[in-house]
Amino acid sequence: MGMFDKPILVFQTDFTYKEGAVSAMYGVVKTVDRELEIFDGTHEIPQYDTWSASYRLLQSLPFWPKGTIYVSVVDPGVGTSRRACVAKTKNGYYVVTPDNGALTHIKKEFGIEEVREIDETVNRLQTTRGVAIFHGRDLFGYTAARLASGIIDFEGVGPAYPVDEIVTHPIKEPVVEPNRVRGIFEIDDPNFGNLWSNIPLADFNRAGFCYGDMVRTKVCHSGELVFDRSVLFHQSFGFAQKGEPMLYNNEMMRIAMAVTQGSMAQQYGIGFGADWTVEFTKD
Amino acid sequence: MGMFDKPILVFQTDFTYKEGAVSAMYGVVKTVDRELEIFDGTHEIPQYDTWSASYRLLQSLPFWPKGTIYVSVVDPGVGTSRRACVAKTKNGYYVVTPDNGALTHIKKEFGIEEVREIDETVNRLQTTRGVAIFHGRDLFGYTAARLASGIIDFEGVGPAYPVDEIVTHPIKEPVVEPNRVRGIFEIDDPNFGNLWSNIPLADFNRAGFCYGDMVRTKVCHSGELVFDRSVLFHQSFGFAQKGEPMLYNNEMMRIAMAVTQGSMAQQYGIGFGADWTVEFTKD
Amino acid sequence: MGMFDKPILVFQTDFTYKEGAVSAMYGVVKTVDRELEIFDGTHEIPQYDTWSASYRLLQSLPFWPKGTIYVSVVDPGVGTSRRACVAKTKNGYYVVTPDNGALTHIKKEFGIEEVREIDETVNRLQTTRGVAIFHGRDLFGYTAARLASGIIDFEGVGPAYPVDEIVTHPIKEPVVEPNRVRGIFEIDDPNFGNLWSNIPLADFNRAGFCYGDMVRTKVCHSGELVFDRSVLFHQSFGFAQKGEPMLYNNEMMRIAMAVTQGSMAQQYGIGFGADWTVEFTKD
Repeated sequence: MGMFDKPILVFQTDFTYKEGAVSAMYGVVKTVDRELEIFDGTHEIPQYDTWSASYRLLQSLPFWPKGTIYVSVVDPGVGTSRRACVAKTKNGYYVVTPDNGALTHIKKEFGIEEVREIDETVNRLQTTRGVAIFHGRDLFGYTAARLASGIIDFEGVGPAYPVDEIVTHPIKEPVVEPNRVRGIFEIDDPNFGNLWSNIPLADFNRAGFCYGDMVRTKVCHSGELVFDRSVLFHQSFGFAQKGEPMLYNNEMMRIAMAVTQGSMAQQYGIGFGADWTVEFTKD
Repeated sequence: MGMFDKPILVFQTDFTYKEGAVSAMYGVVKTVDRELEIFDGTHEIPQYDTWSASYRLLQSLPFWPKGTIYVSVVDPGVGTSRRACVAKTKNGYYVVTPDNGALTHIKKEFGIEEVREIDETVNRLQTTRGVAIFHGRDLFGYTAARLASGIIDFEGVGPAYPVDEIVTHPIKEPVVEPNRVRGIFEIDDPNFGNLWSNIPLADFNRAGFCYGDMVRTKVCHSGELVFDRSVLFHQSFGFAQKGEPMLYNNEMMRIAMAVTQGSMAQQYGIGFGADWTVEFTKD
Repeated sequence: MGMFDKPILVFQTDFTYKEGAVSAMYGVVKTVDRELEIFDGTHEIPQYDTWSASYRLLQSLPFWPKGTIYVSVVDPGVGTSRRACVAKTKNGYYVVTPDNGALTHIKKEFGIEEVREIDETVNRLQTTRGVAIFHGRDLFGYTAARLASGIIDFEGVGPAYPVDEIVTHPIKEPVVEPNRVRGIFEIDDPNFGNLWSNIPLADFNRAGFCYGDMVRTKVCHSGELVFDRSVLFHQSFGFAQKGEPMLYNNEMMRIAMAVTQGSMAQQYGIGFGADWTVEFTKD
């Protein structure tokens, strides 16, 4: 089997790259099998934030080749009784992760074909027995490497358990009416300060909103009005003036909000989560 | 064709690595051709700063093997009428970028042999039609991958256009006289807080300055004097006392200013750009 | 010789990834030999901090395959008379680094079999002669690449010098008595805000401390008491309440201190170094 017959490994964690942890984790992978290819997904998931871990999987996993093994380690319960698992998705990927909510979006959007609990008696780095706090290195990365290299097959991960036992976060659905759509900001783009809603472009169009429209946009935080303006909806940032808020279709094909060459999050103090609701109406 | 017959891809963006965008972009590349090698140039170009994008290309591109394809995505005009292009440099590289000033230094220092506008009807990821704001993933990365893998040749990128239509920023030239050199700080080292001038070491030497000299150094911001001191010019930081400003020959063979084991930018409040002028005279 | 017969290169520096320096350095490696594999160790070692460089080597190097070449560039004395060296460790690795303290922990824990000073007349990128401040690119990365590719063997690095001339930092040893252990916090986890002591789990156990114990924990800074509480010692963070401090066995098999889903460093203002002492007694 050549190196390109073996799946790619992509890692996302909340470890950052500030010290030697990611390096140690990748070293374990390359010690299992020198031929494996490793990519950084991101190591800057907000700490302990399993919702963000779940969303970033949705955002990036489907762009990788089928068969890719995504390792997601945001693990506030490391060393406790939460399950460590490998999920096989219906669209042909593997996700190695603590079963703590990180599979929420993948399960809903793509479906999980089968999930297995990692058997620590077999799939655990033996030289670090006694360490209970670094499963990224000792369990998840190690198991992913063994799976990718063919040392174990999917059954070799450990016992299967019912897919409906997978831990998930609640997902809010938007409400779509003619000329009115309500939803939430469910995640941000932390770099550019954009807010991403849970409203698909298709629903937005169906409700009657088109590129070029001015859209009355109300944002509430826990019911309190934070932003209320008529905002341009268009294809890209450059259609609005620099410094102006605007609505656009984001990379997930969902409605999002930005300030052209600025930060919506900072300029208007807007965040994301179930208590950040947004309502769009025809102006 | 083996993997090492295909050019390396290096990416620089202003996306940061905080979320899933870089991962999605790289996944597209590996889906086009599993054998392609990808490297991070940097993902921390200051947001929307096409000048910095241009400078970082100059700083890093010539150290890669000939044939390397550098993808630069700092793209404030994404989704508008700015051209998306691939430039072939006279020293044997390809740069895939929005044509928005990012080719300024490469064009001046190495020359552009030919430039082609990316034909979106061919060289665009089809599964994300409708998304207009992530050309890094959908257009630039995808096109670079197709070019590297040999799916298209350079002609296959799209129609050529005149090299003198390439968008460039103005570049200031230093003024060199015996015992007096004037220039600007044109970029920084944002980590160590060093300021890099546009004055080549050769010009500085020609004007009469040598390692070991104390050099009268005046820095002005929009004409206002910000710094005026006699400063040691030497080979490296260790020749000055810790905490002391000094002049040195930087990695680009240009005169630069540092504080030994400190930050010139922070300690003296000095920035870069056309309005940050510096004058060196014999003490 | 195929690509997998050549050692992996892992780089750690204090350069950050903010601009083009890492890219230029890696480009030089790939220009020496296209087949070499490169990994980021970390590029966020605190600036000029050779102690941290040394500790991060200890933390990550032994998890890589034998033969791996680790390049460590934290180099406050770049361009001065400090030695540039390649050390061969007794456990089968190479470390390419300025000889400035970065080998402290590796030498103590694994031993150095032989150390050689890099001969700049041979092992120096010739196209950048005149640049004295970027040995990461021009000397360390270049030499590591030549060694990995087989262009030079270890003798080809340059002349050997006595291992006991290697520059090291003093290392403090813990004091272990029944029911009382004293040590220091010798490093942190800068992301999660954990503090790592120099006390091995084995010593802690030998002194009589077991998982589940409440341990009287006194932290002093330069002799002044900063923290004095009874703290749970357990396997992992999840055994303490969120926001509570706790003691655990860290990834280095040493006693460490955390706040569950919080930051010990920030919440209690605790740092690391020889003047941060900690004493554990039976409650």
